[in-house]
Amino acid sequence: MAEKAEKKLEDFGRDMISEIDKDLSPTFKTLARTKSNVIFDESMGYIRLGNKVEERTFVNVGQARKFMQTIAIANKCKKFLRENSHTSIRGLYYQLKFSLGETLDEDLFSEQSESNPLIEDLEVALSLKREDLNLNTDRKGVVAGPLVLRDRFGGSEDIIDCTKQGRSGWMIPSDVDNGMDFKSVDADYVLVVEKDAMWQRLNEDKFWKKENCILITPKGQSSRGCRRLIRKLADRKLPVYCFTDCDAWGWYIYWAIKTGSINLAYLANDIAIPEAKFIGVTMQDIKDYDFLGKLTINAKEVDIKRAEEMLGYEWISRSKGWVNELKTVLKTKKKIEQDALQGPRLSFVGEYLKEKISKKKFLV
Amino acid sequence: MAEKAEKKLEDFGRDMISEIDKDLSPTFKTLARTKSNVIFDESMGYIRLGNKVEERTFVNVGQARKFMQTIAIANKCKKFLRENSHTSIRGLYYQLKFSLGETLDEDLFSEQSESNPLIEDLEVALSLKREDLNLNTDRKGVVAGPLVLRDRFGGSEDIIDCTKQGRSGWMIPSDVDNGMDFKSVDADYVLVVEKDAMWQRLNEDKFWKKENCILITPKGQSSRGCRRLIRKLADRKLPVYCFTDCDAWGWYIYWAIKTGSINLAYLANDIAIPEAKFIGVTMQDIKDYDFLGKLTINAKEVDIKRAEEMLGYEWISRSKGWVNELKTVLKTKKKIEQDALQGPRLSFVGEYLKEKISKKKFLV
Repeated sequence: MAEKAEKKLEDFGRDMISEIDKDLSPTFKTLARTKSNVIFDESMGYIRLGNKVEERTFVNVGQARKFMQTIAIANKCKKFLRENSHTSIRGLYYQLKFSLGETLDEDLFSEQSESNPLIEDLEVALSLKREDLNLNTDRKGVVAGPLVLRDRFGGSEDIIDCTKQGRSGWMIPSDVDNGMDFKSVDADYVLVVEKDAMWQRLNEDKFWKKENCILITPKGQSSRGCRRLIRKLADRKLPVYCFTDCDAWGWYIYWAIKTGSINLAYLANDIAIPEAKFIGVTMQDIKDYDFLGKLTINAKEVDIKRAEEMLGYEWISRSKGWVNELKTVLKTKKKIEQDALQGPRLSFVGEYLKEKISKKKFLV
Repeated sequence: MAEKAEKKLEDFGRDMISEIDKDLSPTFKTLARTKSNVIFDESMGYIRLGNKVEERTFVNVGQARKFMQTIAIANKCKKFLRENSHTSIRGLYYQLKFSLGETLDEDLFSEQSESNPLIEDLEVALSLKREDLNLNTDRKGVVAGPLVLRDRFGGSEDIIDCTKQGRSGWMIPSDVDNGMDFKSVDADYVLVVEKDAMWQRLNEDKFWKKENCILITPKGQSSRGCRRLIRKLADRKLPVYCFTDCDAWGWYIYWAIKTGSINLAYLANDIAIPEAKFIGVTMQDIKDYDFLGKLTINAKEVDIKRAEEMLGYEWISRSKGWVNELKTVLKTKKKIEQDALQGPRLSFVGEYLKEKISKKKFLV
């Protein structure tokens, strides 16, 4: 992949040089990441960019500065790839500031945030992820279960057996593609659990061993690396089940895993998991599990607002199950945390999940 | 430890029963965690509780409800210990709500936060950490290097070799005491690096291998588990060096590791590391490394305010080095991120750290 990325960056530069040689303004094309070019793709089941193309060009008063910054970023990334070294966006920022600061009138990257849309431009123009350009993103999320990975990194190769990670589990890195592959995946399904505390509970009960599943927590909203890992497991035909709170935040986590999100629409094909199914917690659970009734808490304004919004999404409004759910939220103004399933006994969560999965009680 | 904790909880209950048998109000003693009872202990070098004792008693209108809650928590914790199961504070909350909700007029733990001071009461009264009561706290932080751990958890034993954790490292759990011990520690020192991105950079360069050190990032402010791990490594006589941003947040991270913090004064002996030394980044570095001058950024109000506050702390104001540093911050109104050391080349951070450590250039 590193060679492929380096080649793409080289071609990217070569094309511009040839434009300059022809006395043309150097130019490159990228897909528009404006709201009007973000669509829900019915057939794919995820949120992706449309086909609207934007051109970036150097000889343009409004674009020259950003154009040059983008080229400087591409140049640095090529260097990182050649050196076989990674850094963060912040590291990139300081490299650019160091290189360009003296020979230019103004500091280029006065704010870190300024570089982000430029990196996205590059990702889209080159059909690469920033991780392929040796740029690390924030990592978050943990996994345990029958998954063995081979990690070639920093000059050595380590075998990571996710059944032997004790109480901690294996922390999901920023990049699960380059220098990393699955040595073996011997599971029946993937279970994604919103909260780390709940993951720890299930890990202690060896849920992944009893159920032969891969147990993942994104620790709240999923990082890019976490989504990518789930996508790669789904590519192995493993079913993906999501278990979150019954509230605005929990629903968002689920839907972002399933259909992707507007911000990352440009990566949809790499990270969306339309196959993902929602286990719970659901409002229906209150009827099915008596004790839950007294463990609900009051929904907040954000939960109500989110439920209303979701009813307006075409891909949700045609699901009878989800419509019922959300209407119940609006009617009762209650929500339930996944932690509430620990009420009767700490191990109850596992019983709940087993029943839901074996009886295929998913919200679809 | 689990047996010791269970015994303490039993004695705690037995004492109260014997008071009830004598027609006395059941009572227990704990150290006051009020601001006036938090002191900086000169001889120990950390912030700890003073000797002011508070009594909690059942037959007292203002205390009855909280007293009963505390006993209910103690009861649940004993159950968790006996079942050999852990949960989070949130899990505890739902267990209590489930058990007590029906037989009582009002829900006891209407807010999760209400339980926190009660758990602290128990920790202090019993001289135990909540981790010893099978209550998990938020985990954060990562380690790599010549450290091998034995983790007995959830019915199995795993050996964690922190030299073989690839790009991810080993995630520091909530509890590094119970069911966990060091199989081997074969390092020359411990390096604590504020930011995860910087940790990843050093891990990729195998800094821990070249330098034979244990490389830890708390990922910002240190979790309890992370501090406890560093404390245990310091107990093995390993020097502890801290590397943070030169700003309010970075200083706070360092001082909280070194002297502990007001909130956790009751745990000082378990988690403070007065031996810790500050490597940088320092304002002095701007003079020693030319290029840093143009990579500084403007200090924010919070940085200035923090620098002023710190000059007022007795244990800082008598350090000539720190006083000079902070005065330079106040004069120049600049700050420096550790990431800036990647400016000249990605691997420069390692060179910087090696020089500082080998020449013992610490800010003391």
